[in-house]
Amino acid sequence: VSDAGDPSVSSVLVGSGAGAYPVLVGEGLVAHLPDLLREYAPAHRYAVVSDDNVAALYGEDAVDRCRRDGMTADLFSFPHGEASKTREQWSILTDRMLAAGLGRDAAMVALGGGVTGDLAGFVAATYLRGIPLVQVPTSMVAMVDASVGGKTGVDVRAGKNLVGAFHAPRVVLADPETTRTLPLEERAQGLAEAVKHGAILDDAYFDRLGEEAGPLMEGDVPATRSAVLRSVQIKARVVSEDERESGLRQILNFGHTLGHAIEAAASWSIGHGSAVAAGMVLEARLGEALGVTEAGTARRVTDTLTRFGLGTVPRGVVDEAAVLGFLGADKKARRGQPRYVLLERVGAVESTRGWSRDVPHAAVVALLAEAFGAETAADGVTT
Amino acid sequence: VSDAGDPSVSSVLVGSGAGAYPVLVGEGLVAHLPDLLREYAPAHRYAVVSDDNVAALYGEDAVDRCRRDGMTADLFSFPHGEASKTREQWSILTDRMLAAGLGRDAAMVALGGGVTGDLAGFVAATYLRGIPLVQVPTSMVAMVDASVGGKTGVDVRAGKNLVGAFHAPRVVLADPETTRTLPLEERAQGLAEAVKHGAILDDAYFDRLGEEAGPLMEGDVPATRSAVLRSVQIKARVVSEDERESGLRQILNFGHTLGHAIEAAASWSIGHGSAVAAGMVLEARLGEALGVTEAGTARRVTDTLTRFGLGTVPRGVVDEAAVLGFLGADKKARRGQPRYVLLERVGAVESTRGWSRDVPHAAVVALLAEAFGAETAADGVTT
Repeated sequence: VSDAGDPSVSSVLVGSGAGAYPVLVGEGLVAHLPDLLREYAPAHRYAVVSDDNVAALYGEDAVDRCRRDGMTADLFSFPHGEASKTREQWSILTDRMLAAGLGRDAAMVALGGGVTGDLAGFVAATYLRGIPLVQVPTSMVAMVDASVGGKTGVDVRAGKNLVGAFHAPRVVLADPETTRTLPLEERAQGLAEAVKHGAILDDAYFDRLGEEAGPLMEGDVPATRSAVLRSVQIKARVVSEDERESGLRQILNFGHTLGHAIEAAASWSIGHGSAVAAGMVLEARLGEALGVTEAGTARRVTDTLTRFGLGTVPRGVVDEAAVLGFLGADKKARRGQPRYVLLERVGAVESTRGWSRDVPHAAVVALLAEAFGAETAADGVTT
Repeated sequence: VSDAGDPSVSSVLVGSGAGAYPVLVGEGLVAHLPDLLREYAPAHRYAVVSDDNVAALYGEDAVDRCRRDGMTADLFSFPHGEASKTREQWSILTDRMLAAGLGRDAAMVALGGGVTGDLAGFVAATYLRGIPLVQVPTSMVAMVDASVGGKTGVDVRAGKNLVGAFHAPRVVLADPETTRTLPLEERAQGLAEAVKHGAILDDAYFDRLGEEAGPLMEGDVPATRSAVLRSVQIKARVVSEDERESGLRQILNFGHTLGHAIEAAASWSIGHGSAVAAGMVLEARLGEALGVTEAGTARRVTDTLTRFGLGTVPRGVVDEAAVLGFLGADKKARRGQPRYVLLERVGAVESTRGWSRDVPHAAVVALLAEAFGAETAADGVTT
């Protein structure tokens, strides 16, 4: 374990239909993987799945450490990047594990970022109808968000995450030391979800993130550990109450309805965090325009995101017609109507009409026209 | 509803981690699909999935009936046969449903035999991370067995059902009238699983099946309804106690360890029911050879199966080396050892070493040598 002696490891319990599981947050967890696997996911064999980058950084070491400890472990790596999050790569990994002879008494370790957690998690969910899964997030977005809550899946041509399953892990091991190796840009992408956690449920955390933006962006480990822990606590509270997103869990989609549409309209040329950040700014404005969200909220959201280099609406990259088009195809739409999570203020979601709601189409059109519209440009306002 | 007035519909409740669901057994259920869907799986839109044969027999009618009743329903059909139970067909159905714009407020109706239930069930399990599923089995094997218990999945090159998920239906609608259109051979294939239900848990049912083999093979509806109901009750009792096959559910694999290996060794040129029937005969002999199974049990199992044209060991079609090879690759193997369910006698499984157990390899080799071996042929005994 790193540092002097025994740094604290925090544990957050997440409720799930398949049984509660802990999220451990602390330095040195990856170094202690063999013991932790034996404790939380005893198995005859282990499949460690990582992308090629993470395989070189941590995967090969992890497998070696398990083997030296007398365990049977194999590394299955795949090309890094969102382009691997497909049914094809899911098939390839499944077939390689079958060829290696892994049976029902095997367990899967998803070691990596959000793509790895989603892809390897979906393999684990469907391999011989499901084998135990351990999530070891190494990116900021996986650590603060994606590794908790049991969602797994892949992208298809029609959209992201449209095929998948809920498959709760046996344990999540979040080791903030692994974020040290992340490029600055990736760190910011993940922190967008942390800002979202503050925006929907914790005003004080929201402010603290803004204050600690410097150390967080520089990769300071104690600051990172503290943010990861608070985000995990918030996410755990939400998904424990509503694992399958029939109620409260919808609030985690704040910023995501417009965020996903923007991401799709940009053909995924901008990061998920950047798209969600823009979505949060726009959905805060939408709430204000509808008289639902406290005035000044959008300003506060923008100011905090700016400290992470986020929150800019990608004018020029996407156009409003494309965003409107993708809104209609949203996975969470009901009767063809997209659903929005609106803030009451920073730290609280408006819920008098349920945890998500439809809004007048005209309000969305007006919002997007103002944000992206050609009229604005024609008026001479900065684009 | 068929016949005079209101024939009885029986309901059997199945426990599941995702909530209990009923299996309804009775004539006229398919004719009343719209009302039943509204009651058990209210949804904005329905996707009815059938193979091309069943689409023509029942699928198109079912969709028309739903539409006349004011519901939004679409038929998605696929080429009949086990060759469609693949990841490729699963992708195709998923993409067609996405292209049709079905959202999370849609529900899936799997109308057909075992392939349809498994394939469409896996689509439902993974579509937008899971949509509600209604199983409407129309084949004998689907009705007495496959539609109950939540197993879904597809075949891959390495073996059958190696990729899949547990996805409990909202309701199972078993209408014995649909079995009238089945060819005799298919009826027998399904009844093999009914004989298995008797063999593992209900001596009296086992005997009754033997006595009613004539009417059952002729497609007599009351006899069919009675067998379907008893099989569903037995299966419901087992899977309610152990949905994920960590304990009691293993007893449903009686006949399947050797049955699957025989099926694979025959390159699936013989039916699943025929393979399982041969497996039951051989596993009863194995139990007798080990002193675990009451003497005479294998004889009784063989006699009953013979009435359905089943229970013959496919000498000449498969050879013992291939069967032994596939045994090592069994999905349910632990530490590389295949597991067997052995009878104590007809109607009772031996369980002093758990619900399944390994057996000495030499005993299996001897059994297969006797059943398939070249030595027997060389000795001049009939092959």
